[in-house]
Order: sequence, then structure tokens, then C-alpha cells
Amino acid sequence: MYGSIHEECGVFGVYGTEPSPVAMTTYYGLFALQHRGQESCGIVVNDDGVFRSYKDMGIVNDVFNSDIIESLGTGNMAVGHVRYGKSGSNNRNNAQPLVVNHIKGHLALANNGTLINFAELKREQEMNGCIFHTTSNTEIISYLVIKERLTSATIEEAVCKAMGRLEGAYAFLIMSPQKLIAARDPRGMKPLCYGLTDDGRYIVASESCALNAVGAKLIRDIEPGEILVFNGKTKTIDSIREHCNQKPQATCIFEHIYTARPDSCIDGYSVHRARENAGKFLAQQHPAQADIVIGVPDSGLDAAVGYAKESGIPYGIGLIKNKYIGRTFIAPGQQARENLVKIKLNAITEVVKDKSIVLIDDSIVRGTTSKKLVKLLRDAGAREIHMRISSPPFVDLCYYGTDISSKEKLIACQHTVEETAKIIGVDSLGYLNVDSLDKLTPEGKCKGFCKACFTGVYPTEAPKQEYDNRFDKKLSEKK
Amino acid sequence: MYGSIHEECGVFGVYGTEPSPVAMTTYYGLFALQHRGQESCGIVVNDDGVFRSYKDMGIVNDVFNSDIIESLGTGNMAVGHVRYGKSGSNNRNNAQPLVVNHIKGHLALANNGTLINFAELKREQEMNGCIFHTTSNTEIISYLVIKERLTSATIEEAVCKAMGRLEGAYAFLIMSPQKLIAARDPRGMKPLCYGLTDDGRYIVASESCALNAVGAKLIRDIEPGEILVFNGKTKTIDSIREHCNQKPQATCIFEHIYTARPDSCIDGYSVHRARENAGKFLAQQHPAQADIVIGVPDSGLDAAVGYAKESGIPYGIGLIKNKYIGRTFIAPGQQARENLVKIKLNAITEVVKDKSIVLIDDSIVRGTTSKKLVKLLRDAGAREIHMRISSPPFVDLCYYGTDISSKEKLIACQHTVEETAKIIGVDSLGYLNVDSLDKLTPEGKCKGFCKACFTGVYPTEAPKQEYDNRFDKKLSEKK
Amino acid sequence: MYGSIHEECGVFGVYGTEPSPVAMTTYYGLFALQHRGQESCGIVVNDDGVFRSYKDMGIVNDVFNSDIIESLGTGNMAVGHVRYGKSGSNNRNNAQPLVVNHIKGHLALANNGTLINFAELKREQEMNGCIFHTTSNTEIISYLVIKERLTSATIEEAVCKAMGRLEGAYAFLIMSPQKLIAARDPRGMKPLCYGLTDDGRYIVASESCALNAVGAKLIRDIEPGEILVFNGKTKTIDSIREHCNQKPQATCIFEHIYTARPDSCIDGYSVHRARENAGKFLAQQHPAQADIVIGVPDSGLDAAVGYAKESGIPYGIGLIKNKYIGRTFIAPGQQARENLVKIKLNAITEVVKDKSIVLIDDSIVRGTTSKKLVKLLRDAGAREIHMRISSPPFVDLCYYGTDISSKEKLIACQHTVEETAKIIGVDSLGYLNVDSLDKLTPEGKCKGFCKACFTGVYPTEAPKQEYDNRFDKKLSEKK
Amino acid sequence: MYGSIHEECGVFGVYGTEPSPVAMTTYYGLFALQHRGQESCGIVVNDDGVFRSYKDMGIVNDVFNSDIIESLGTGNMAVGHVRYGKSGSNNRNNAQPLVVNHIKGHLALANNGTLINFAELKREQEMNGCIFHTTSNTEIISYLVIKERLTSATIEEAVCKAMGRLEGAYAFLIMSPQKLIAARDPRGMKPLCYGLTDDGRYIVASESCALNAVGAKLIRDIEPGEILVFNGKTKTIDSIREHCNQKPQATCIFEHIYTARPDSCIDGYSVHRARENAGKFLAQQHPAQADIVIGVPDSGLDAAVGYAKESGIPYGIGLIKNKYIGRTFIAPGQQARENLVKIKLNAITEVVKDKSIVLIDDSIVRGTTSKKLVKLLRDAGAREIHMRISSPPFVDLCYYGTDISSKEKLIACQHTVEETAKIIGVDSLGYLNVDSLDKLTPEGKCKGFCKACFTGVYPTEAPKQEYDNRFDKKLSEKK
Repeated sequence: MYGSIHEECGVFGVYGTEPSPVAMTTYYGLFALQHRGQESCGIVVNDDGVFRSYKDMGIVNDVFNSDIIESLGTGNMAVGHVRYGKSGSNNRNNAQPLVVNHIKGHLALANNGTLINFAELKREQEMNGCIFHTTSNTEIISYLVIKERLTSATIEEAVCKAMGRLEGAYAFLIMSPQKLIAARDPRGMKPLCYGLTDDGRYIVASESCALNAVGAKLIRDIEPGEILVFNGKTKTIDSIREHCNQKPQATCIFEHIYTARPDSCIDGYSVHRARENAGKFLAQQHPAQADIVIGVPDSGLDAAVGYAKESGIPYGIGLIKNKYIGRTFIAPGQQARENLVKIKLNAITEVVKDKSIVLIDDSIVRGTTSKKLVKLLRDAGAREIHMRISSPPFVDLCYYGTDISSKEKLIACQHTVEETAKIIGVDSLGYLNVDSLDKLTPEGKCKGFCKACFTGVYPTEAPKQEYDNRFDKKLSEKK
Repeated sequence: MYGSIHEECGVFGVYGTEPSPVAMTTYYGLFALQHRGQESCGIVVNDDGVFRSYKDMGIVNDVFNSDIIESLGTGNMAVGHVRYGKSGSNNRNNAQPLVVNHIKGHLALANNGTLINFAELKREQEMNGCIFHTTSNTEIISYLVIKERLTSATIEEAVCKAMGRLEGAYAFLIMSPQKLIAARDPRGMKPLCYGLTDDGRYIVASESCALNAVGAKLIRDIEPGEILVFNGKTKTIDSIREHCNQKPQATCIFEHIYTARPDSCIDGYSVHRARENAGKFLAQQHPAQADIVIGVPDSGLDAAVGYAKESGIPYGIGLIKNKYIGRTFIAPGQQARENLVKIKLNAITEVVKDKSIVLIDDSIVRGTTSKKLVKLLRDAGAREIHMRISSPPFVDLCYYGTDISSKEKLIACQHTVEETAKIIGVDSLGYLNVDSLDKLTPEGKCKGFCKACFTGVYPTEAPKQEYDNRFDKKLSEKK
Repeated sequence: MYGSIHEECGVFGVYGTEPSPVAMTTYYGLFALQHRGQESCGIVVNDDGVFRSYKDMGIVNDVFNSDIIESLGTGNMAVGHVRYGKSGSNNRNNAQPLVVNHIKGHLALANNGTLINFAELKREQEMNGCIFHTTSNTEIISYLVIKERLTSATIEEAVCKAMGRLEGAYAFLIMSPQKLIAARDPRGMKPLCYGLTDDGRYIVASESCALNAVGAKLIRDIEPGEILVFNGKTKTIDSIREHCNQKPQATCIFEHIYTARPDSCIDGYSVHRARENAGKFLAQQHPAQADIVIGVPDSGLDAAVGYAKESGIPYGIGLIKNKYIGRTFIAPGQQARENLVKIKLNAITEVVKDKSIVLIDDSIVRGTTSKKLVKLLRDAGAREIHMRISSPPFVDLCYYGTDISSKEKLIACQHTVEETAKIIGVDSLGYLNVDSLDKLTPEGKCKGFCKACFTGVYPTEAPKQEYDNRFDKKLSEKK
Repeated sequence: MYGSIHEECGVFGVYGTEPSPVAMTTYYGLFALQHRGQESCGIVVNDDGVFRSYKDMGIVNDVFNSDIIESLGTGNMAVGHVRYGKSGSNNRNNAQPLVVNHIKGHLALANNGTLINFAELKREQEMNGCIFHTTSNTEIISYLVIKERLTSATIEEAVCKAMGRLEGAYAFLIMSPQKLIAARDPRGMKPLCYGLTDDGRYIVASESCALNAVGAKLIRDIEPGEILVFNGKTKTIDSIREHCNQKPQATCIFEHIYTARPDSCIDGYSVHRARENAGKFLAQQHPAQADIVIGVPDSGLDAAVGYAKESGIPYGIGLIKNKYIGRTFIAPGQQARENLVKIKLNAITEVVKDKSIVLIDDSIVRGTTSKKLVKLLRDAGAREIHMRISSPPFVDLCYYGTDISSKEKLIACQHTVEETAKIIGVDSLGYLNVDSLDKLTPEGKCKGFCKACFTGVYPTEAPKQEYDNRFDKKLSEKK
């Protein structure tokens, strides 16, 4: 349903007062954000008002090469984007940044997020004769901004007015000929931070790991509702706070649990530490008699360290992930699909044989992967498997960008914890308590999380209406 | 100047009442129109209202393969486009057909032509908050049509109203979920015709050779100003003639002389015959004492046959063209560039040695190619070369899509015929008389030609204003 | 049968005493020889004894780009090769030139031809422990040369001895660290010539059109049996004539009729003129009452000019070939395959309608293409079609490289001329008389032709044994 | 020097008595062995004696796609190969498996290893007229085997005789029309093992992780000197032990320390456990006062777990590796190269800040990477860094395939441990004691290691002579 407007992505921007190899910088920044989206990527360089852009389907390393980076040249600003690969939506048109021409010149937009009033806004714009080249939220935002621009003194004023119409989760970068503007929705649902390099260039990115990758030091997160304006004309940086403190913060807790890289820092706290804390709470809430604590690579490792520390059970390496798996894999046969877990992961027999194991993973969605993983360990001789999940059970959909499209596929909606344990074949199963979520980061670090997928309590209204396009619907049916 | 909005292209559409392999049909149609544009190409299939499209930079044979054609699937309609490759403008965004979503669903547009009120229309649309993803005329047209659609009962009514605003040369296809609409500008500056296949599908194409390639028989040309509506709902074909007979016909004479394939028929007359007639007139106007008449392959061959027939001098084959040349060629070194004519063409020594030759070519632009060609023949032993050009001298620019961007580069603007003959090294030189242009096709076949590039007399006003974008200008300067 | 050792190809070599951009020169040379093979191509540069090579499947324009040409660098010699694309044999290993290392250094070989004692030689070499990476004749030749090299003072002596063992058709280039050696079989079955550029570099090529393309003037053909040695050490050019005048010349007549480019000159006579002569003889042997003479593009055009001249019937252009056809075409559907002739060729209705036509083609193999071509003209309104073929009927196989693999597929083996005329739907049909073949080139120009495919009289023995590899046979069966 | 014959690689073979999708199986097997070579890869399928092969430059996922796997089809056997990417040697010809035709049919070879009598054998073969298409050891082996085959009753007899001539490290697979043969050198320098799938197919592979990936259970390692013959005709499996127990075992210790995947088992012992043991010994030999033990991902993690366990200092995750790094990376600028460590690895500030850290890595070669890594941790606030290396210092070259080509580049050859510590900027530095190497695997598991790179004591003679090819030398100089 809302899947068609799914927008989990990573954004990156660089701003300086002098020309520099911003394309190369953005390339490395996107490379660090690759985990946020592998479907498509793009870079737009702003060379004194002239925009040069390149984007295509694929990961950063496949889309860009030396020639392309060179052809993008130097500039004083650039924005980049990586887009999440939802199966079936691989539309080249939806690749970002979006570059449009309008009455005042060029505009490049890169956005991460999903609007819940997408349908309403699109309908309204269409009624005004707007035409759409993409199915993305970003084009909606660009129309809103451009419309407000007609009656605003500055582009940032237009952005600020446009934000008054946007409902939902977003964190976007807008690059005009002279400015780089970063904005985060009033609830701060998606992360966005900025920092400074040694040579005086400012970097804005979805995650701080991208700042580190280009040698920048984190200054702080963009605040919920804040608009940050890097002005190439006046050489100033301004913060517009009109939308700040209007709504309770509701940052996606799943960023801490799964999405973000552990070496990133969101809203002032380490993602790795938050996961370690989850492991610690798990050890308190669901202790186990076991010989060893094993994390499922890569996202279960941090919590495993926390569990091991808290429980005193030794941490071990029992599963090895094929490090070449992070790319498109050729369509395997039926049997191969069965064995996909086996191809991605392998157990170390000497570590797990005859052992009682605490197995830490970040989440269970449908349960099928967990089941195969458990079989892998059983085949390698594991005696007991006590599975611990560093998040509560998934019980509801996400309207804001995470790709959970149907409650029927969620094992926690269909089965009790005991039933689930039986289905996946473990000796015991324990999820993180929902109450612990707020404690993953220390008090004062984040003023509030969106925990809707675990609680069914949404920080916004539900999407008011669905965008109704009978031809799009036909398309989905035909697939 | 107007180069940035250059739009010489080929369009192709297929319409049937039942699903059929329209992607394959369009593929073959575009293949036959490849000479009209090698920069990019695309196909959009309409499968009961669901649009599937694919387009990319490159020629038809490189862009499409079996998998892609298969993935486009069957449908009851499709439109396709080939785009001319002007150096420097190779922007993937500008590839057509353009597919946009609007209030009533999808719309696909494929256009050949150039609007002279491009800047005015774009400015007006921008003032309304429109944003532009491309630099092409086609997006302008789509906005006009969609805007009128908001207050029109049907899409064809919107197209008709929109045509009231368009000034210049165009021939476009618009595909809505239920209709295929073909329109030709009121002066008929660009060609467009339609026909019927044995299995009852209608084909619309820039040239009749594309009809033949897919087994369709030419019915007739779309008339200047006519809108032809293939209605998939009512299964009817309607002609809207509101814009017909409003303006004197001014079909581009250069289509007959150079652009179109000789096996095409434009406005009821064979392109080959028109060129043969040009050769005949040349023989009358510029007779020569010679042993043999040789045409420069490929576009000089038809006129050479006409010259030979009229003059009684035997037709011969004296130049052979490398038939693998019709594609991008790797960047040759300086010396190689010098020799490019030698690589494309080779003289047959036994034919030309010690002979007096009448050499027929379609045009002389800068004179450099002619000079090299003459040297090639001299090196092969030609005794005398009497060059005859099957068009008058180029003396003015074209505002409507033909790529002649500067009068300084036109040898006929800088030199007399005698000087030109000396520069290129021929014993005599003769151009077709301007007065003969109207006689290339028999009376009644075409009601009028645009001969502006030969006469400086334009069928429309000159472009009123240039589209002013200082960032675009910077871009050009930076190149 | 002999299909697996099919070797119709083009070879090109350049030799100078100083370093020059030989890769670029070879690139242009191969481009001119592209008609001799589209399956694969390759270039080997000799830079003072260091060999750099690149080869791959595909045509010259697809395989090479600026980067590759540049990476091959400069040298004082180079050899290149284009290979014919027999369906199913597209083995990357078989791409030439073949580069091997041996006791004395490197060796690069490029060959055009087919050995009839292939099986015998291969068996013998295998009995000595030789291993084969390819299925081509060229590897056999390389083993022979290297074996003789062990006991010879010079590489040319080894080549000369090796030629004593080779039976069949060949024309090859061998490049050693210091020498470029060109050899043509004692019967001169395959063409090979050489020339000189203005800057003093020698060019050897299968056809003289490749000399022209790189600005070289033809010196003469390599004589049957001759070995020409360009010696980079002594800076001399030597001719070894030990194998000359040992056997009657038997140059493939099909080179004149079909294979070679019309602008080439073979054994001192213009290919175009030979074809024009064929047309002249046809007009004498098979006159027709007709309005127009039309050649089938491209290989029927030269003879059509000859027929027109001799008969006095006007030459016309009635068929247009899609000039983008010269490349791989996507797998068309069943119906499309039916229409392939229509996609390649189109009739000019205005020229053929209600006319009696003399239609000139170079040959009829199975008759299916001719049949479709005739239908095309009939559909365009042709009243009478008198087909004239500029070669005698194909009645026998070729052992020497031309791809005629089965007599059952030859229409002339199954039907009389009258029957054939009926099958393909023409009003009359006439083939060139076999006796005329010897007169296609003037007396003294070529001392003898191989006309085996028209006469069944072979210049060599038949292949003594077939190379027996039961696994290869299985492979063919499995296809 | 020996770099040109560098052959670190992975081999994989599958054998069954019935046709099965062996290409797919081999694909997954090579995918699991990808860490052993990223330069090129290939698969040869044996379909009842018919060989179908495909190989190219690149990693498994780039070289193969569904179409290619499908085109390779089913068979009862297959062999595959991944080849190590040494800079500059990227020669497509050297891709394996090597397929050759010889007197008895086809032969496919896939080898991992380096012969020390390479030059001697090649010279000898050249003196017999052998020609070489590649610069690899594998072609030498194929000639030896084929030569012996001429006078042997069976292919395995020929392999056994050939092994009498081979000196050095090797582990190869030979596939004949009816047999799959696996052989390991008499010292067992390179690993090779085999196992059985549930559906009764045998798998041979360089590492047991490839067996697991295709669902096979490890049976045992091929013994040093053993030849294992899977006979498709007799359906038997035979072991030829003529070369067994002739020489002391000398398995490369670096396989345990670095090369192999930790989930593999070599000569009966877990690679992960061997590394954990190294960590344990390090803790005993070089204790440290510290807050946390951190491993450098990925190859330092196993030893870090061992160090943490033995020392009681908590194991932590302090460095995160970008998981998309495992592929070719675009040529970065100078500054970027400086920052490459930063792009690959990032420190978790919250974990390392103000901490005393034990940092575990597998080896130090030149010291430059370690230096940057230490700076990364210092910048993140690390108070003290005690570096521990899970192998002894590199002091000598490897003749057998590991890419250490110059002693000058080895920091341990130029500096003391104290100096090294200072250079890389750590508070203390400790290497694993050489004496501990034999204890990494328990007694009885491996009868002996090659530790030459740490000790200078070689299990074989040094290479007797270098292969002397002045043209190859020129090539190197020209680079």
C-alpha cells in the first residue's frame, strides 16, 4: 500500500566557500551510507550555480567510476543520495537527487522519509496542472517549495512555508545555485547531522559515520523542525527554528536497533552503545544457562557483546558471514533459495558443537530466516539454542519508510512467543521488553522515539487517504 | 542559441483494439527511423492503461535487447522515439517518449520539432510554479496539454486547445491510457503519416519507410494542423481539423533533399523521386562534359541517377562507403581526423582514373568534407571534377530543428560559387536553382515548402525572445 | 563438417623502422576489413620486442575504444585480425591474432584460410604431446612453425619449411620480436597484398581497401607461394620464393563476386570492374525486355551498372537498405523473422510500380531470401521481374573457408533454373555462364581461379580425413 | 621476481554419477572461496564428455549471471577456479580453469600453488617445441600430464608420473571426459579437502567452507602427496598414495593465520580455533593493562576473542568495517588514498574514548596501514594502545604463492620491535612467538607447517633459476 512511496534512504551534502573536489567527497560520503540504500544513487555538483549531475540504478561503486567523478568536477557544494532497493520499484526515474529547473534557476533535492499526506498533496498539485515524472515524495516537496518560492523573498523562506504543509517523516537537503539547505521534520523522525572538516567545509549527512569517512568532526544533529541554511553568498550559516519544539520528538527507534551503522551517533548517542544496552537489558530480562553468547552478523554483534558482559557468559564467534554477499546475487534455483542462509552464513563447528548457545539477533520478521539459521547451528552440533532478540516483537506497520508492508507476514502478529520458539526451533526465546526502548539511550539524549511498529501507537495521524491511481494499481496486480 | 532546444527526431506509434506485441513492432519501426536520430531512443507500451517504458542513450540496437523488449510486454498501443545526437546535449533526461503522471492518469509524449515560442511558454509556466526536469520542448507541450485537460472534456480537446498556443514546427504523438493522438503543426513543417497493417493495427510514423518495415500500408499523411485520435474505448478514429487550413503549408524542403530516407513518401510524393528530379534539374541548369556521373553515398545517389538520365552521361559507382561507419567512432588522433573522409569513403581507382567526372552531393555546409572528397578522387587519378549540388547554397539559419547554428560556418555565406569551387578544388561547381525547389514534387502534391535556410524567408516570425537562464549560459561557457 | 574449422577472415599488418601509433593504424585497417568478419577481432602491437595485445568477441567498433587503443601504445609493428561469425562457433579462445610464447620469444599469428590437412597435422602434433587451446587452423600453423624454428637459423626459414607441410588455402601474417612475415599459399587461394604509406610504413592486408583507409598506396599482391619478410633488425625486405610457381594459381573467384569490397583490387584487377563485367556478360547471355535495371544492395549494385550499360536499359534505385543493419540484431519473433527482408530492404514504390524490372543479385543460395525480395517488389507494384545472378549456380561445397556446408540447402542442387524461377516467383531467371568466370578479369591479371563451388573441380585433393573428436561431435549434436 | 608466477587461488570441483546442476553448485562454491582470489574466475562443466566453459576477469558475482549459468547447463562433473588479483598481472589468458584439447580428448585444470622449478620445466618443454598461451604454472602442469599420458594407461597414472617432476606448492583438480582427479603436493603446502552432499555428490575444494556452502559434509583433507580419482566410468573413488609420506608435511601456516576463512577446517583443525589460540598465546606472551580488547576486522577478530578470554580483559567492538569495501574501489585522489583506512574502517568513539586498548591484528607488513589505524583510534580519544599481532614478524619472502615480493618493504626487516612500535605510534607492541606457531593446532592435527616467511627456513630448495625472457623483462621495465 504505502510501499509504493517507500523512501528509506541516505542523504549527504557538502558546502564550502571555495571550490573543492566535492564530487569525490560526496562519493566517499555515499559509500559510507551505502547500507541505507542499494537501489540507486546520485551526485549533483554545484559549480558556481552550474549544476552537473549523475545518477543511476546500482550501488555507489557500480554507478560511479573515475571518469564520471572527474566529469562532475569541482564545486563549492554538492548533494548526494542513496536509495533503498524495494523489490519491484526499481524505477530509474526515482533515483535522487532530483534536479529541477524553475523560475529562479536550478534546484536539487535529496530526501529521506515518507509523507503521510502524500496523496492529499499530490492530488492538490495535480489539480493545479502539475505533472509528475516520478512516484517519489521528493517531487511533491519540490513542487511545494517552488510554489512558495514564487511569493517568498528567499528559498529558505519557501522551504519553511512548505514545511508547514508536510506531514510525516523527512530529512532533506535542498541545493539552490547559492545555498545548501538542510531540514528535518518537526518530530525528528529521520536522523540528520552535520560536521566540519579540517579544511573548513561543512558536511550534512543522514549518519555521522559519513562525516567520519570524509574526515569531518560531528558538530551536532539538526534539531527536529530545524532548517539549517548554508549561504554561499553571505558566507553565513543560519538556523531557522520556526518549526522547532512544536511537536514531541519521535525519532525512529529502529535506526538505533537496526538501520544505522553502529559507528554512527544519533541525537547525541552511540548506536553501538544503544545496541549494547539492548543486549544488557536482554540479559537481565531473559537470562539463560549457556556456554557461549553468539551474535548474528552483522547487526546482532553489538547486542551480543552487551549480553555477554552483563551475563558473564563468554562472547564467541560462531557464525561467519560471506563478506561478498553485500551485492546483488544471481537468481538462484529453488533449492538454492532454500540454502540462501547457508550461502550467506556458516557456523563454526568447533565453537558450537555440543554447546548451549545464546544467539542474539536484532529482530524476527517472518521467522523463516531464523528457522534456517537455527537449523544451521543444530546441524553443526549445537546442543541448546536460546534465542534473544534485541527489539520487541513487530506487531504493527510502519507508515514512515521502513519496509513492513503487511501484518500477515509478521510472525509476532500470528503467534505467541512460545509458538514462535517452537516454529523456529529454539529451546527458549526472549524479546526485549518494550519499556526498555526508552532506556536504550541515556536520559536527555533523545527526547522521544517512534516505537509504532512495536506498540501500534503512532506519533502522527494515520495516512488520511490513499493515493488512488487505478493504473498504478493495475500495474501492481499485473506483477 | 536555439541549439539547446534542437529537436530533430523520429516518432512512431502503433494502435490496435487487441493486445499484440507492440513493443516489438515499435522496435522495428524505430529501427527504420534510426537515421532521424542516434542520440537516444525509447519505447512506451500501453497495456490496458498500464504504461511500461524503457529509454536510454544510444541507437535502437544498443539500447534494446530481447530481454528488454520482452519485459515491455504486449499492449494495444505503444509510442516510440529516436532523438538526434547534437554534440554536447547528450542528456539522458531529454530522452523521449516523455512519460508523466497527472490528474487523469498517465501520458506519454513523443515529439519531433522545435517551438519558436519555447522561451515565452516556459517562462509563463514557470511563473505558475511549474518545475522542469528536461530542457526539451516536449515537457512544455505536456504542461500545456495537462493544463488544458483540467478544463476540457477530453484529452483531444485539450490537445486542440494547446495547439492554439504552440508556434513553430512539431509533429507529436500523445498516448493516454485509452487513446493514441497524432498531431502535426498547422504549417505541416515536420512530416507525419499513418497506415494500416494486414492484421488491422494502425501505425503513425514520421516517415512511411517505418510503416513498410512493420508491414503496414500507407493510408495518407496527417494533414497540416490535423489531430488524429485513435480511441481505444470507442474503437473509433476521429480527425479534428480545427487547426487545418489556417496557415500556408511550409513543409521542410530539407526532408526531401537530405533528412528522409529515399524510400519514404512525404505528402504524397516519393523522396527518391524528388531527389531524382533535383538531379534532372541540375543537369539542365549546370550541364557538364564528362565521362561518368558519380553520386556521393548515400544521399547523393538518387540525384546522380537523375542527372545521368537527363544528361545521357553514364551513371557509375566511383565511391564506396564503409557500411560499418553508421555508429559512434572512437576518438581518432589528429591525423586520423584528417583522414576521416578516407576511412568513410574510398574511390574506385579503375572507375575514376583519367576520367572527367560529374560528382553529385546533396549539400555543402562548411566545404571541408567536399574538399577532402575531391582530393580523394584526384589522388585516384580523376582528370576533371564537376561538382553538382542537389540543393541551393545554404545562406541562413534554421529555427525549426535542423542543426545549422552559425552563419559563419556556412561557406556560401562567406564565398561566391566561383571561390567555393576553387577552395574545394573542383573544375566547376553548380548548385540547384532556388526556383527549382517548388518543382521537386509535382504540383498538387505539397502545397508549400519551408525554404528558409536557402532564402532567409521564414514561414513564422523569428523566435521572439531567447530563454534566459544565466546558469545554463554559464554551463555553455564552461564547456 | 568442415564448418568447425571455418576461417574466412581478414588480416592486417603494419611495419615501420621507427615507433609510430601502429595500434591506431591497425584499428582503421581492421575497420576497412570489417566485412570479412564480424565475430571477433584483435590487435597485437610489437613495441621493440614487447607484445601488447587485445582481442574480444564483436566488431572492431565495439571491441576497441580510445582507452584500449591508447593502452596498446606505439610500436614499430602490429598485426590485426577480424574473424567471420559462423553461428555457434563463437568461441572467445578462437579470436586472433594468436599470441604464443616459445623458446625464442613471442610470436603473433593472424591467418585467413582453411587447411585441408588440418586433421592429419593436428593428430600428428597431438601424438607429440601438443595441447590445443583453440579449434583453429592457426594454432596448428604455430606449432609447425615453432617446431621447425628449433632447427632453423631464422624464423622465415621455419615458416618456409612449415609451408611445405600446409595443404589448402591460407594467407597469414607472423610477427616475431624483430620481423613481420607475410605468406600466401602456393595456389594463392586467399588474397593478400601490400603497400606503402607516405611516411614510409609498409602495410600488408587481405584487401587493398584497407591500404587506402590508412593512406597507403598498393605496391602489389603477395604472389602465390611467396613469403615476404620485413626485417626490423636489418631494415630490409626480402622475398622468399621457394614455394612460388610450384602449383597452378587458384584464387577464390568468390572474392571477386561477393566477398571483397568493390573498391579493392585483387591480383591487379578491380573487384568493382570484375562485377561490372559480370553484369555485362549477363546482359549478353540473358537479355531482357525491361524498363529499369535494379541492383540488390549492396553486392548487386556493381553488376547492375554493368548490365544497364551493356543493355541500354536505364539503371535505377529501386531498393533501399537500412544502413544500421550491419550489426547484431535482436532475436526477432517468428513473424519478425519472416519479415527480416522487409526490415533490411524496402522497395521504392514510385520506381518499381507497373515496371518491368531486371533485378541483379550476386548469388542464390537457398532461395528463401530471393523469394521474399521478389514479393517485396511485387507488393510495391512491379509488373515483371527478370532476375539475373552475377555468378553461376552453386552446386558444390567449399573446403577452403566459404561457409557453404551442405548441398541439400543449395537450391541449384535440387532444382532446375526454371523450377527455381517458379519457386522464387520471377518471370525469368538467368545465371552467369561458368565460362565467363575466367573472363571477369582481363587476361594476364590472374593466372587462375578456384571455381570449385560452381564446377565441383577442386584445385586440391579433398580433405583426406576428418578430425575425429567424439566429444566435439557430441557437442554438435547437443546443440 | 617470482611475482609473475604468483598463483594464490581457490579451486572447487563437483562429481556425481548422474547429471545435476553442477554449474550452479560450482558457482556457490566459488562464491564461498571468493576471498582466495578476486582477479578472475571460471567454471567448466563436463556434460558426458562435452566441456562447456566460461571464465573472465572479475569476481564471481560480476562474471556470472543467470544466463551464463544456464548456458553451462547440467553435467555430472564440473571444476571451478578463483584467481588472486596481483596488480599488473591481470591477464585474461591466465584465468582458470585451463581447458586444453589433446590426443585423448579434453582436459580441464584448476590449480592453486607455485612451482619452484617452473623455469626449468618451461625451458625443457619449449625445447620440445611446446608453445605457451599463458604465463601460469597450470599450463606447465598440463604439458607434463599430457606428455606422460602418451605413454600411460590412464590419466591418473600420467598425473602420478607428472607429480614426480613438480617441485613446490600445488593443489590441483584435473577433469577429463570421464574422471575428476584431485592432487595435493607431497608436502601438503596448499590445502585441499573433500566431502559429500546429501544427494550423493562429491565436492573437492581448497577450503571446507565451500563444502558447507553447497550443503556438503567434510569427509577429510586430501593427504599430502595423495591423488584422489573420482572415476565416472567405474563409479569408483580411488586413492593413489605413491607420493604420500615421502616428504615432511609443510602446510602454509599463513592459511591458518590469515588466508583461510575462519569457518574453514584445515588438516582437521578449525581455522577460527587456531586464531583464537594465537590470541591466547599472545595474552600469555604479551600481557597488557587495558580496559578493552579490540580486533581489527575481519581477520583480527578471532584472535581478539582468544586474547580477551585468556587475559580476562573484556572483548569489545571498537572498529567498524564498511561492508561494501570488498570490491574494486575507484582510483581515489592523493588525499583520498591517505584516508583509505578511514573509508574502510571507523572507530566507535564511545567505546575507545579515554580507554586503554589492546588492539589485535593478524600481521604487519609495511606498517603504513597500522600507523593510520592507530591514528584513527587516537583521534577517537584512545588513551593507550597496546598492539598485539597474532603472527611473528615477517622477515623473509615466500616462494610458494603468498604475495610478499621484497624484503625492503617488510618493516620487521628494517626495524626492531621497539622502533616499529614508535613508528606506528603504539604504547606497546607484541608479536606472537615463532615457537607458538606449531602449537596453533593441537598435536596430531597437522604434521608440520611451512613457516619460512617468519623463519627463513624453507621446506624446499630455493628456485634454481629464474625464467629468463628478455621481452617479459622489457615489459616489466616499461610498466
